Amino acid sequence: MSTPLRLGIAGLGTVGVGVLRILRKQAKLLQARTGREIVVTAVSARNRSKDRGVSIAGFAWEDDPVAIARRTDVDVLVELIGGSDGPAKAATEAALRAGKDVVTANKAMLAVHGQALAELAEAEGRQIRYEAAVAGGIPVIKTLTEALAGNEFTRVMGVMNGTCNYILTRMQSSGLSYDEVFEEANQLGYLEADPNLDVGGIDAGHKLALLASIAFGTRVAFDAMELEGIGRITIDDIHQAADMGYRIKLLGVSRMTGRGLEQRMSPCLVPAGSALGQLEGGTNMVVIEGDSVGQIVLRGAGAGEGPTGSAVIGDICDLARGARLSVFGQPSATLAAAKPAVSTTPAAFYLRMALQDKPGALAKVATVLGDNGISIHRMRQYDHAAALAPVLIVTHRCMRADLDRAIAAMAATGVVEGVPVALRIEEV
Amino acid sequence: MSTPLRLGIAGLGTVGVGVLRILRKQAKLLQARTGREIVVTAVSARNRSKDRGVSIAGFAWEDDPVAIARRTDVDVLVELIGGSDGPAKAATEAALRAGKDVVTANKAMLAVHGQALAELAEAEGRQIRYEAAVAGGIPVIKTLTEALAGNEFTRVMGVMNGTCNYILTRMQSSGLSYDEVFEEANQLGYLEADPNLDVGGIDAGHKLALLASIAFGTRVAFDAMELEGIGRITIDDIHQAADMGYRIKLLGVSRMTGRGLEQRMSPCLVPAGSALGQLEGGTNMVVIEGDSVGQIVLRGAGAGEGPTGSAVIGDICDLARGARLSVFGQPSATLAAAKPAVSTTPAAFYLRMALQDKPGALAKVATVLGDNGISIHRMRQYDHAAALAPVLIVTHRCMRADLDRAIAAMAATGVVEGVPVALRIEEV
Repeated sequence: MSTPLRLGIAGLGTVGVGVLRILRKQAKLLQARTGREIVVTAVSARNRSKDRGVSIAGFAWEDDPVAIARRTDVDVLVELIGGSDGPAKAATEAALRAGKDVVTANKAMLAVHGQALAELAEAEGRQIRYEAAVAGGIPVIKTLTEALAGNEFTRVMGVMNGTCNYILTRMQSSGLSYDEVFEEANQLGYLEADPNLDVGGIDAGHKLALLASIAFGTRVAFDAMELEGIGRITIDDIHQAADMGYRIKLLGVSRMTGRGLEQRMSPCLVPAGSALGQLEGGTNMVVIEGDSVGQIVLRGAGAGEGPTGSAVIGDICDLARGARLSVFGQPSATLAAAKPAVSTTPAAFYLRMALQDKPGALAKVATVLGDNGISIHRMRQYDHAAALAPVLIVTHRCMRADLDRAIAAMAATGVVEGVPVALRIEEV
Repeated sequence: MSTPLRLGIAGLGTVGVGVLRILRKQAKLLQARTGREIVVTAVSARNRSKDRGVSIAGFAWEDDPVAIARRTDVDVLVELIGGSDGPAKAATEAALRAGKDVVTANKAMLAVHGQALAELAEAEGRQIRYEAAVAGGIPVIKTLTEALAGNEFTRVMGVMNGTCNYILTRMQSSGLSYDEVFEEANQLGYLEADPNLDVGGIDAGHKLALLASIAFGTRVAFDAMELEGIGRITIDDIHQAADMGYRIKLLGVSRMTGRGLEQRMSPCLVPAGSALGQLEGGTNMVVIEGDSVGQIVLRGAGAGEGPTGSAVIGDICDLARGARLSVFGQPSATLAAAKPAVSTTPAAFYLRMALQDKPGALAKVATVLGDNGISIHRMRQYDHAAALAPVLIVTHRCMRADLDRAIAAMAATGVVEGVPVALRIEEV
């Protein structure tokens, strides 16, 4: 029997507790599967005495996660603190410099500092594993880096924020407004301390940036992502999309185009009958398209103690078995600096606006669209009591830049109230 | 740069050609991702001069796959011959004995000889990888053995024979009979040379046996599987199941129960709206349920040059990277001899029979069911012109053994023509 693999766990929130639970419950199974005993030697968290429902009595305690990272009786730092900087990053760097591998669930840290951390890990001959950082229990990192390593990827997309998907599907099923469902989600504890991380698309954007880097062999470039949250989606949008056979999802899409790397995290319309359209509640889905494999769809819980804990443990098992892999699937020096390509793929768009109810108003809008090369596929003006008429337009395939120009020009017509909402219809 | 990984490929059918194409097209990508050049040194097939649309001019040729396995310039045997015995097995054994790893797509060989081959591989310190053997391009082996290694699995199920799913969904969409669609599938080249491998459930059964062994840590036991093909499914079954909100799928289900290992490959009813119910055509789906991760659903192409080639290449990349893994995810000596448990999980059943159209006939059937402890949830007698009335019964949850006893007793009633068709309604 080989020597035990010794873990130091920094961060004992939901995921940390999940990891401790699995390690305890499945110790025998893990040993059978990896050939090694996996033990926790030390832990660290903000509050030592908090009741977590799982005992930490047998482990050494460190107040400082960096101290965990440097302990000589720790082989692997399990970083479950979170946050792109601060103690999570300090501990990760300390662990790599001390010759230890790192398992983390920290999407923000890798989306922001991934390239530098990958370079550090390689310089130190160590590894960073982060299956838990993207889509909870769904093995998307492993699928991209290992199982589908023979593929040139053509598109990677997914619904990767369960809170947003909960809000959007709950609006659909209940008929409640965005604000009402947002408040409900808040009461249920579904939202991050800073809700904009969820509903602003930042959390999901971090995840997409990691997938894009792996899939397209590029340096992670979260700052180049087109990012739009779900805050402007109204219950009318939900209903009108449904009327036309669509669902609205906070959808991340990345593809390599002739002009560069496209990365978008934004509310999109997808066919109601598609796998993505049918995704309910907090479940996540990732769709991977490769030149040989075609389309692979992965679905599962995107968050929670068990699923995220499962992903962390999967990474730990890989390390216990001695598997070696570059952080983004290939050496960091070979990752290209991605040229960002903003919406170079044409699409049909859903356009919702409030129009002043006076003669010629609709004609003005149609003229502005036509002048910008955008042709109209469908148009509906809804029944209304107020002075503003809700108007819904579905365009033919066009470029987002042309549409944005048209939207900007609409202000000058004097008949469009506020800024129209434009949602991409993604072909899935 | 490390030394190249040298492949000997035995078998140049659809999958072999797919592997050669990917190796050629993505040579640069594979080298970036694995850090090694991956080269083919020798190939073997039945017919050297056949035009495969891909040149084999640069490779050494061997008439005998065993000779490939023994070549000193081969590090990995890629066995794509197929068949449980014969040259595939001889070459695999020869390769392991000669100190080479094996990548194979051969479900039959592993389902029948998996334990012996795993023992041989371990004795020689070598590996057998077989992602391509189950569900084509879907990374189910990797997901079970690696990504979800922290889970105690509760159920693994799936639709893993694209031909059967094509036949069943085509019957549904076209209204054609089983025989008509079978012939259509035959014309399209979808069927194996021995069609019973497909429609008899054997091919899918081989795959399920491998998944069960990994998931439950048991010796592969294909011979203990409950196996039933789709040959008795009529277009009426398809329609009547649809009327009640179900689809009929050739569904493999394995679970560990208190009484032993349950492995079933049989036509089942699943809810039409479920992910499994909505699976169309040749696509495969595997559903994995683990105590921590919950439910993970994987969907993709289950066959074909590209998808299966992708899976083979994924395994080759793992070997190129130096990853090591036991054949069934844990050392073969630790795999338990599975006690087969035949249908110990109760379920509702769909029961279709032809009843003689005379007074008291239905009462007799109902009595037989009641006598065997089976209560009726729904019953329909369909309109009919002939002397035999088609009767459809959905039972409440019951044990399959009780139902089989009832079916046997029906013969004695003299009112049931032939043997009723009983299909399990699987809760998914």
